Formats: sequence, C-alpha cells, structure tokens
Amino acid sequence: MSVTRDEVNEFLAREFPQNGCTVDVLGVDHATVRRRVGEADLRPGGTVAGPVLFAVADCALYIAIFGGMGITPMAVTSSLNMNFLSRPAADRDLLGACKLIKVGRTLVVGEVSIFSEGLDAPVAHAVGTYALPRR
Amino acid sequence: MSVTRDEVNEFLAREFPQNGCTVDVLGVDHATVRRRVGEADLRPGGTVAGPVLFAVADCALYIAIFGGMGITPMAVTSSLNMNFLSRPAADRDLLGACKLIKVGRTLVVGEVSIFSEGLDAPVAHAVGTYALPRR
Amino acid sequence: MSVTRDEVNEFLAREFPQNGCTVDVLGVDHATVRRRVGEADLRPGGTVAGPVLFAVADCALYIAIFGGMGITPMAVTSSLNMNFLSRPAADRDLLGACKLIKVGRTLVVGEVSIFSEGLDAPVAHAVGTYALPRR
Amino acid sequence: MSVTRDEVNEFLAREFPQNGCTVDVLGVDHATVRRRVGEADLRPGGTVAGPVLFAVADCALYIAIFGGMGITPMAVTSSLNMNFLSRPAADRDLLGACKLIKVGRTLVVGEVSIFSEGLDAPVAHAVGTYALPRR
Repeated sequence: MSVTRDEVNEFLAREFPQNGCTVDVLGVDHATVRRRVGEADLRPGGTVAGPVLFAVADCALYIAIFGGMGITPMAVTSSLNMNFLSRPAADRDLLGACKLIKVGRTLVVGEVSIFSEGLDAPVAHAVGTYALPRR
Repeated sequence: MSVTRDEVNEFLAREFPQNGCTVDVLGVDHATVRRRVGEADLRPGGTVAGPVLFAVADCALYIAIFGGMGITPMAVTSSLNMNFLSRPAADRDLLGACKLIKVGRTLVVGEVSIFSEGLDAPVAHAVGTYALPRR
Repeated sequence: MSVTRDEVNEFLAREFPQNGCTVDVLGVDHATVRRRVGEADLRPGGTVAGPVLFAVADCALYIAIFGGMGITPMAVTSSLNMNFLSRPAADRDLLGACKLIKVGRTLVVGEVSIFSEGLDAPVAHAVGTYALPRR
Repeated sequence: MSVTRDEVNEFLAREFPQNGCTVDVLGVDHATVRRRVGEADLRPGGTVAGPVLFAVADCALYIAIFGGMGITPMAVTSSLNMNFLSRPAADRDLLGACKLIKVGRTLVVGEVSIFSEGLDAPVAHAVGTYALPRR
C-alpha cells in the first residue's frame, strides 16, 4: 500500500477539515472512517441528520480508494445511493466501513456500512461510485 | 395548502438552522430550496462537497412534503439516490427543485434537480423516499 | 436527428427481439417505448414482475441515447435505480418515457417514468446511467 | 427456519416459472439463487441483458426473505438499485447471493452480489427494498 493512515489523516486535516472524518482503518481495498457527532449534526427529532451520514459514506469511499492507489484528491463522487436503516445515536461516534467492490480504470464502486459505535445494527448502508482523474 | 413559505422558513430557522437551506418556492407537490455556498462547503479541487448537495436534495424533498401536508417535522429520509452531473460553481447559490412523484400513506417519493443559480446544466439529480410518521 | 423511429424499431426487431419493446416516440434527448404485457410477465399476485418494468426502463434509456447520437448498439447499462410506485395493470401496455438529464463524453444519465397505458399514476420511476463505447 | 430449499423451489416452479431462478442456498438472512443463461437472455454485443441480471437480484432478495419468515408470496419490490460491474459470461449460470441488511416490520433491505459461476469478479451488485404484506 502506497500510503499510511497517518498520511491520510494529515491530508484530511489540511485539505478537507470541514468533512469532520478521521481514518481508523486503512487497507488496499477497504477503509473505516470515524466522525464525532455533536449538536450541530442533529435534525428535528434529535437524531443525526441525513447529510452527516452521507458525509461519512462519501468519505469512507474516498479514503478506501486512497488505500489502494495512494492519496488521489481529485477522485470525485459520481453517484451514491443510501438506505437509512435505523435511528443513529445522538451521542456516539459514527463509523463508516467501506469495502471496494470494483476498481476500474475510470470508475471505482464501493459499499459502506455505517454504525453508531458500540451498537450492532447498521444505521445506514450506501453504494457509491467515484470517477478517477485521468492519468 | 396548509402552510406558507414564511411559516416553513421560520420552522427551518428555528428547528434546523444547521441545514442552511431556505425556501424559494412552495406548492402542494413541489418546492425549491436555496442554499448559500461558502468556503466551508468546498472539497479538494475547490468544488462544492457532495454532502452539501445531498443536504440540498434532502431538504428540498422534506419541504415539498410540507407543501402538501403541512409542516411534518418527523418525516424522515428512508433512501436517497444521487447522481452528480457537473461541477457546481463555488460562488453561486445552489437551488434544489423537488417534484413529488408519489405521495403514499407511509412513503413519499420525489425527485430533485440541483442547479448553481443562473447556470443551465443541472449539477446533480436525486430521487429520494421519505417515511411519514404514523398518524 | 440521425435516426428515425422506424430505423430503431427495425434494429430492435432484428438485434434485440427478446426485449419486447417498440418505440412510440423518439427525440434528440427523449424517447417513449411500449411493451405488451402478457401472462408470462406476471408474478405471484397477478401483477407485472419487476424485471419487466426494469426492461422497459432500461430500453427507454437505450433508445433515448439513439435519438441523440444514432443507433449505438454497444452503449451498456452502468447503473439503474428503480422505485416501484403502484401496481401495474396486468392487461394494459406499459409505456416508458425517458428524458436524458446529462449526455457526457463517456456516460449518459436519464430518468424514466413508466405508466400503464391510459392510467395517470406512474407505476415506476427509474434513473439510470449508460456507458458509451469509446469512439 | 420455517421453510426448506425444496419447498421454495416447488413454490417458484409452480407460481413463478417465468422467473427462471432456482435456489442453491437458503438461510434465515441470506439466499443464493441460480439462473441458466441462454440465447434469449443476451443483448446486442452477446452479453447478458440487464433485465436478466435484475431478475436474479430481485429473486435472490425475495427468496432471502422467505428464508427468515417462510414463503411470503405477496412481498413486493419497493426499490432496487443496481450497479453493473463487468461483462457476464454468455455461457455460464448466474449466481445471485443475497444477504439481508435489515428486516423491519414493513420493509426489508438486502444486498445482492451476482457472479458468473466459476469466475471471481462480480458482474453486478444490487441493493433492494421489499415491502412486506400487512399481517
């Protein structure tokens, strides 16, 4: 693997801090990212807002791509399909675990399961596609 | 229609300010929401981050439901599928125009086209499903 | 436009008869296809099986691409997201109306509404992506 | 588990023969279905047509639901999102392996990986939702 977890965390902190995610696990075809949940992330009803879950899924896929091909800032989301499964805890970190399904020449497809840390049932599941920059 | 645009904007400002959207247009089966874009919304490459576009789509659908049935805070996203079509402008408001496709007893389905204000080509398209609270 | 409705119908009859669709309307960024519904298309409960609706959506998008760029047999489905909205009639033709949302260099995105002929409420809605052959 | 593989295969042969799938594996939250591929399943270019892959995904999810709750003919597809990953073999059976992600009171969500038998790379991946009949 051409990049370490620390290098990716430095990249995220420097280039994409508003995203709010850090990397827990990094492999050549998978990654797990973590996101703190705070007051500003909640929606009416006191649960985590959908866009926060989307951010976790989107970032987990972005980082899983880095795991295999190194930091690739200009990889961009092409599509993302999310199913919301159960109410996330308002006071636990979110963990997004991505596994790449296909790494093509121009497109990467991956799936992401999102959990409230310490709870068994996934809160959301996503499948997304990233377009890779031309080399 | 059981609710006005002003009433919905007051609801959003009071209960969901972190969402960042306001309502431009409200009808019984459609709505258009607007979101300012700032530095904090950009991703590597200087374009608008995916979660911001997701937030616009998700909010447009939430508000279109309000247009038909009044403010329904506990309507929650069940699924959302997004296609990213072209690079949004970093210095223009985003507009998300939602049209409801089906209003069922427990589920609502709608589609959303997202534009950078003043530009013709859509930057993203979404189809989403909301679960309605039991009455 | 580089191709007529008759030419596309001849292509379908010759190269893809098992698909079962014919073209009703053809434009540079849209198309409507028609499919007879018979006994073999039904699923338990007597309604039209999901794969038949998928075939209508998939074919409508394929043909809408032809409308703009001529017959392109090697355009292939890259992704397709379907929402099933209401029970189709077992004794009416299905009509699938596709409108292209984006025509890129390598990908085309379109949306499709499917109806039982003569009935107002759509039975399904799809958004799909086709990959174009390299030129 | 309230139903055997043989009972499900008898149900499919009797009530849904046009689907073309049989059950290889059945568990309380998963199932694998098999489908022969023949001439009538091919599309221009000699590869398996998208609707055939959709039929495999849709059936694998239907059957995985049976694994947990017994034969439930009136479970109906509510949404299905497919990504097509690589060209299926024209002369090998398709296998669709479904794992349920969530079993709710009214909705079930599952994911399906589809393979050409004996080949490693998946040819398609799907995530779908079924609505359960009211009890």
